[in-house]
Amino acid sequence: MSNIRIGIVGYGNLGRGVEAAVALQPDMELVGVFSRRSGLQTVSGVPSYTMEEVESFKGKIDVMVLCGGSATDLIDQTPAIAAHFNVIDSFDTHARIPEHFENVHKVAQEAGTAALISCGWDPGMFSLQRVYAESILPQGDSYTFWGRGVSQGHSDAIRRIEGIADARQYTVPKQEIISAIRNGETPEVTATSSHLRECYVVLEEGADAARIENEIKTMPNYFVGYETTVTFISQEELDANHKGIPHGGLVIRSGETTTGTKHIYEFGLQLDSNPEFTGAVLVAFARGVHRLAAHGGRGAFTVFDIAPAWLSPKSAEELRAHYL
Amino acid sequence: MSNIRIGIVGYGNLGRGVEAAVALQPDMELVGVFSRRSGLQTVSGVPSYTMEEVESFKGKIDVMVLCGGSATDLIDQTPAIAAHFNVIDSFDTHARIPEHFENVHKVAQEAGTAALISCGWDPGMFSLQRVYAESILPQGDSYTFWGRGVSQGHSDAIRRIEGIADARQYTVPKQEIISAIRNGETPEVTATSSHLRECYVVLEEGADAARIENEIKTMPNYFVGYETTVTFISQEELDANHKGIPHGGLVIRSGETTTGTKHIYEFGLQLDSNPEFTGAVLVAFARGVHRLAAHGGRGAFTVFDIAPAWLSPKSAEELRAHYL
Repeated sequence: MSNIRIGIVGYGNLGRGVEAAVALQPDMELVGVFSRRSGLQTVSGVPSYTMEEVESFKGKIDVMVLCGGSATDLIDQTPAIAAHFNVIDSFDTHARIPEHFENVHKVAQEAGTAALISCGWDPGMFSLQRVYAESILPQGDSYTFWGRGVSQGHSDAIRRIEGIADARQYTVPKQEIISAIRNGETPEVTATSSHLRECYVVLEEGADAARIENEIKTMPNYFVGYETTVTFISQEELDANHKGIPHGGLVIRSGETTTGTKHIYEFGLQLDSNPEFTGAVLVAFARGVHRLAAHGGRGAFTVFDIAPAWLSPKSAEELRAHYL
Repeated sequence: MSNIRIGIVGYGNLGRGVEAAVALQPDMELVGVFSRRSGLQTVSGVPSYTMEEVESFKGKIDVMVLCGGSATDLIDQTPAIAAHFNVIDSFDTHARIPEHFENVHKVAQEAGTAALISCGWDPGMFSLQRVYAESILPQGDSYTFWGRGVSQGHSDAIRRIEGIADARQYTVPKQEIISAIRNGETPEVTATSSHLRECYVVLEEGADAARIENEIKTMPNYFVGYETTVTFISQEELDANHKGIPHGGLVIRSGETTTGTKHIYEFGLQLDSNPEFTGAVLVAFARGVHRLAAHGGRGAFTVFDIAPAWLSPKSAEELRAHYL
């Protein structure tokens, strides 16, 4: 069987994560990277092309992995590329998922392509676990915890404050709540009440630390309501200890099957690199998209529509013999 | 839409677990329980029938959930019932899964039914996690831990020793190995080296404790090679503290995407009742079998073949809006 031919659209952290992930798959090859910038040097040395050249690869790429940002790129890019290729994206602007799905579905159905949206770990693997867990345990409570991990959006928000030279923000789940759930309790929690926000801040020369700490803690939408800590550190310390982009989290369902008989279903990820793992999930599901398309799938899909066997390079016989 | 009509074949702990699980599903009804015994009283009051009456329910039951034991019942029963009904079983004799699959596949294809074999948590949910994890992280190591939980087979084996009035055996994963893996180490382990076996034994009057402890620890296939503890307790203590059938375990994959960039993928179950949770998994996948059959699926299948969306009573729109 010939390799699955992959293209990457967008070459930031996520695009590089996809590039690395394709290299680990035994049945895939990376054809090229497409970017707004021309003359891009890729990590693996795979050729890069400009967006204007995308259409000339029709028939030469089986699945395009779209690695742009949700807000700015994917909302337009996914339908545009789905008009010519099977695609997969990591669209994660939650409120706009139904609208994005409809847009992509219409284009892909007309073009006869298969398009999988909102893939990654959340949305993606966490979503899958929520569906499995609740289908098995319809009576119960589901919880999602994020972190310990870097929130890029919150880090950016802090860095915009006057007097801050650099900053990193970590989202941290409250361990005492996780422990209570594992012990069978079903506390009422919100994302705000179940997470801490840790900020590591490098001040500019002469900046007012007290004013800055207050500005962070009272920033609407980002920090108000959260238990927030602000720690001032040197640029050297930030560079040495806070340059990675780790993330992860937990999905837990606590359910009952008969009165008093409890079950804890738990899924956790602990990731050294958020974009590399997200890229790895996209690449496994790109195989699913390829097979779905080969089986006649046309239109928009999500992770819920892909049979797990389609994600694996192994045959059905191998899976039954060695993974059941 | 009319309810999915479920039948249960076999009415031990697992059959009662399925009965309880069906009652929690919004779109299912239990038509009857089929057993070798006649005049059976069911927990829910649903009618019971003898095995001879099974065929008269053709067209009245959408999916038969087979709740017999792997070794004695399912190897013959699953093909026999699949000749007339869509079925699901929890066949877990690992070495015979390929043979069982082929037998069931042949019958189900000829009969035009859909049959899902080897469902539950292991095989079943653990199998799924192994496939997801390895598809996403092809470079890495996978680990499975079982317990802390009661091993029925080992408990039975101990009880056959002369001088033992009653006994319960727990399989317990070694926490220090789990911690090492979570910290990014990839130790070489076997099921034997990564688990303890805890035995709680009630002696008969005048029995020789030292001889019995030695017989347990040197029992081939069951205990030889394992770190085994034997604790002698009273029947009252066993009845008070060891009458449940809890189980659970972990699937962990430790993988790398680029050199030194590690990811820990972890799935865990902590179950108050092994048969009730297994029953709950079977019932969710019974919905999958029903939908698979409605989509033209004929023959034998496994959990790997079922798109997650088919397990849920919710619509695709609801899943996209609330679970992604």
